Amino acid sequence: MNEKLFMREAIKLAKKGIGSTSPNPAVGAVIVKNGRIVGRGYHKRAGLPHAEVCAIEDAGKNAKGGMLFVTLEPCAHYGRTPPCTSAIISAGIKEVFIGHIDPNPLVNGKGIEVLKRNGIKVHAGILEEECKELNRGYIKFMKTGLPFVTLKLAFTLNGKFYIPSMRYISSETALKYVHRLRAMNDAVLTGGGTIRIDNPRLSVRLVKGKEPVKVILTESLSIPQNSEVFKVKGEKVLFIPSGHAPKDEFKKIGAQIIEVERSPSGLSLKDVLKKLGEKKIMSVLVEGGEKLAENFIKENLVDRFIFIISPFIGGKGKSIFVNGEWMEELKLKKIMKKGRDFVIIGERCSQE
Amino acid sequence: MNEKLFMREAIKLAKKGIGSTSPNPAVGAVIVKNGRIVGRGYHKRAGLPHAEVCAIEDAGKNAKGGMLFVTLEPCAHYGRTPPCTSAIISAGIKEVFIGHIDPNPLVNGKGIEVLKRNGIKVHAGILEEECKELNRGYIKFMKTGLPFVTLKLAFTLNGKFYIPSMRYISSETALKYVHRLRAMNDAVLTGGGTIRIDNPRLSVRLVKGKEPVKVILTESLSIPQNSEVFKVKGEKVLFIPSGHAPKDEFKKIGAQIIEVERSPSGLSLKDVLKKLGEKKIMSVLVEGGEKLAENFIKENLVDRFIFIISPFIGGKGKSIFVNGEWMEELKLKKIMKKGRDFVIIGERCSQE
Repeated sequence: MNEKLFMREAIKLAKKGIGSTSPNPAVGAVIVKNGRIVGRGYHKRAGLPHAEVCAIEDAGKNAKGGMLFVTLEPCAHYGRTPPCTSAIISAGIKEVFIGHIDPNPLVNGKGIEVLKRNGIKVHAGILEEECKELNRGYIKFMKTGLPFVTLKLAFTLNGKFYIPSMRYISSETALKYVHRLRAMNDAVLTGGGTIRIDNPRLSVRLVKGKEPVKVILTESLSIPQNSEVFKVKGEKVLFIPSGHAPKDEFKKIGAQIIEVERSPSGLSLKDVLKKLGEKKIMSVLVEGGEKLAENFIKENLVDRFIFIISPFIGGKGKSIFVNGEWMEELKLKKIMKKGRDFVIIGERCSQE
Repeated sequence: MNEKLFMREAIKLAKKGIGSTSPNPAVGAVIVKNGRIVGRGYHKRAGLPHAEVCAIEDAGKNAKGGMLFVTLEPCAHYGRTPPCTSAIISAGIKEVFIGHIDPNPLVNGKGIEVLKRNGIKVHAGILEEECKELNRGYIKFMKTGLPFVTLKLAFTLNGKFYIPSMRYISSETALKYVHRLRAMNDAVLTGGGTIRIDNPRLSVRLVKGKEPVKVILTESLSIPQNSEVFKVKGEKVLFIPSGHAPKDEFKKIGAQIIEVERSPSGLSLKDVLKKLGEKKIMSVLVEGGEKLAENFIKENLVDRFIFIISPFIGGKGKSIFVNGEWMEELKLKKIMKKGRDFVIIGERCSQE
């Protein structure tokens, strides 16, 4: 039997939930009997049934004696829904294949234990890396209480991030990809300077998807109240220096205001991430200017880099990171073409 | 019958000759009978038999009544070897599939004509683009008398082409790729400044392959005679400004000296290419510094760009093309991973 084939189908299902399950993980499941898939399910939204239960329901009577493939360890506790292990046991599933163990301390091996205790054969670690990839934010958050940080930077082949004659250096296809990234992350974060100068909406328009929380870091507290970001849907959060808050002014815009510690280079990014974690934000996309990007990199707070490289060389305009006192070596994980541009996904070399 | 499948096999064979057939093109051929390949051949070196003849010999008696797949139109003229059309006719081949028509004015459709006149069915344009890709240099040279120019540039993600703490920013795997590029090109071209400052050998060491002609452009004529490039194998050519030649000094190094016109930005690159063409150099890899690269780009003389991007961001060091009065949009054709680096192949958007 091809375990990977069935797990790949479960992964495909799980992907449908990415971006809408938070604070729950995205999970997919299939039920296999006599070598073919008889049930499919995925977790759609927190509060709705888990993937395993959906797959069991989809399989109906066929679930009995079947095998379950699920990207994440089934839960064994009562949350908003009853434990999946109970559903698996009472459906008569005889064997369970799991992508990876749930890092959530409420589960973390207990699901497997319960299944085994009930005479079900369990195999964990099937396509583990691919399954983990579905929930980088959830996994980091469960282990550390901090959100997974993705830093997005767009520039040309020779490192120009701004060209005077162009509104966007990225192509429409690449911009669509950025909107998809926004929808996939719980929050999008930028600096007050970017709001003042570029006045972006930071919203999801070119693709379908949920609106992320818009997070703005402002040291000077001088963001125009008519900025575009305040006109779009979704929660807004302003981080301001502690003990320095003209709060009434900001309340008018309907944004939540959170005070954070200062650091030598501005607001303490560590404190920002901590407070985002307290808000159950498990993933954040940083779409700021050069200074904010540099601070995130220098403080080793970036979990994933996404570079959108436009195929221009030469040109007037501003180059990125020209006078670096620091240098980071990245491990390039993936390269994709997006319209005329291409996208490089990397991680820090020092990262585990 | 799968024409593309057989042509792909012929392409695979042709690739074995790339870099050693010049001034001839790299060509591969297979003979198919009753749906299977009965003969294989490729052109190894100028003076040796052509691919068609090799495949016919390999097929032996099986060639009779067979089909020939060949990446380039068979020649119909006497060169260093007799015409391939004659060999095809007398072997009793009944059908010929051709990748692309030979741009060489001595052939250019005449091969097809001769075959047809002898009752052989001919189909041209099978995997045409892939077949042309085998001989970009030959094709451009035949059409224009000028070599195909590949500009290689290596820099970091943020456009630094030099980092003080590193001998090479490219990885060993990427350097191997560069050596392969050198072996595939008839010549490697650089400026006197690069010779003085970096003192490169410009030779093929990390892979097997023929040594390209080393071409050095020197305006100031102040290249140390003990430069590494003069110690390695292969022909050397120095381009110097016309009427301004301390020729004896250079003769000692065993380099050919060619005088070229001046242009406002140094030596006339157009004249350099013209004179390389006169030397039957059909492809040249430009491995110079920033100024030389810029001049080639600005004068629209680059046929193909190869960027080797190293996964560093930040860092002290020199950024490439920081103050561009010009900007070029490229069409990115291919992206490959080479060790920790990646390679982007692009062409000018304006190019046909």
